[in-house]
Amino acid sequence: MTKSGLFLTFEGIDGSGKSSQARMLADRLRDMGHEVVLTREPGGSAGAEEIRRLVLEGDPDRWSAETELLLFTAARRDHLERTIEPALAAGKVVICDRFADSTRMYQGMSRGNLRALVDQLHALMIRREPDLTILIDMDPQTGLARAKGRQGTEERFEDFGLDLQQKMRDGFLALADEFPDRFRVIDGNRDMDSVAQDVTDIVLKAF
Amino acid sequence: MTKSGLFLTFEGIDGSGKSSQARMLADRLRDMGHEVVLTREPGGSAGAEEIRRLVLEGDPDRWSAETELLLFTAARRDHLERTIEPALAAGKVVICDRFADSTRMYQGMSRGNLRALVDQLHALMIRREPDLTILIDMDPQTGLARAKGRQGTEERFEDFGLDLQQKMRDGFLALADEFPDRFRVIDGNRDMDSVAQDVTDIVLKAF
Repeated sequence: MTKSGLFLTFEGIDGSGKSSQARMLADRLRDMGHEVVLTREPGGSAGAEEIRRLVLEGDPDRWSAETELLLFTAARRDHLERTIEPALAAGKVVICDRFADSTRMYQGMSRGNLRALVDQLHALMIRREPDLTILIDMDPQTGLARAKGRQGTEERFEDFGLDLQQKMRDGFLALADEFPDRFRVIDGNRDMDSVAQDVTDIVLKAF
Repeated sequence: MTKSGLFLTFEGIDGSGKSSQARMLADRLRDMGHEVVLTREPGGSAGAEEIRRLVLEGDPDRWSAETELLLFTAARRDHLERTIEPALAAGKVVICDRFADSTRMYQGMSRGNLRALVDQLHALMIRREPDLTILIDMDPQTGLARAKGRQGTEERFEDFGLDLQQKMRDGFLALADEFPDRFRVIDGNRDMDSVAQDVTDIVLKAF
């Protein structure tokens, strides 16, 4: 491993198990002697967590899609400057649960069709891409049932349902096709340990 | 006056009297029967005021110049969508104490030389320019003494002093040269009523 560190991100629909996989990978790499920073978006630095609260709390309509995009970009910029870049410069492995691909997906595809704006803003203010992005691909029905079990969000289940979850899954797979050099798609419809083994194999190849 | 409203902004260094002039103009136009929305930046809408608090409170180094610029742009976008554009669409006069020119000046010139970034972000996310911008030009020493008298900021006076105030004044005058079509420069080194009369004359010509 060189002194430039390694920047890994996990992406996937809610309930895909990506957060658990990110934690398991961090543990495994630490056991192997790597210095690991495990972080997440939105948030991941003191300032970004404050912006996260501003975006996620209150009335869902309180921000337009464009203002929300600007706030997420401000949070990402802070996260990048304060957490990610210093760790990479120190040669550490950074594992981030969601990053710019989630914005490309959620803000870009599902809300107001802002993908062009997302890309322009990213090129202007963020620029950094992960060295490797692991997409935990998951059957939408299973993902939904898991997310539902975790949060008890019966109503959201009814309201948003399978169609949206399927659209999200397709959106992430389309991103994997768009950026084949850094995306790896892993079948998440298996027991966690099997998925974790695939994740580890892929990451060790990247070192 | 057409149904498209009129968008007026005031700019100037601290202590130039622009906020008082904005209020006096609003009163005068209301007396003449115009519907006026008097607002200010940063802030001017519920969401933008929350972002304002996030930016202005706490340690001055808590945000980088770039993150601060993104937060100010998010606040401006919210202010524009929720306060300014609806009022203009209803044919009202919008008077705003500071707008994008303050960002061009403060973030663009005085902190990190971000002017190119300021312009790109504005072109992407804001676009709207005022119909008329009134720059209250003020002798830096007088402005500083006034701002100091108002806030009792003896230490800031000592720390930042005349040099910075002079630089700010020059920065605003340079913007007036850059955008001669919409900028009007008024000599603020006079009694408030004389300044207010000039402001009113200029604005009435713009209708």
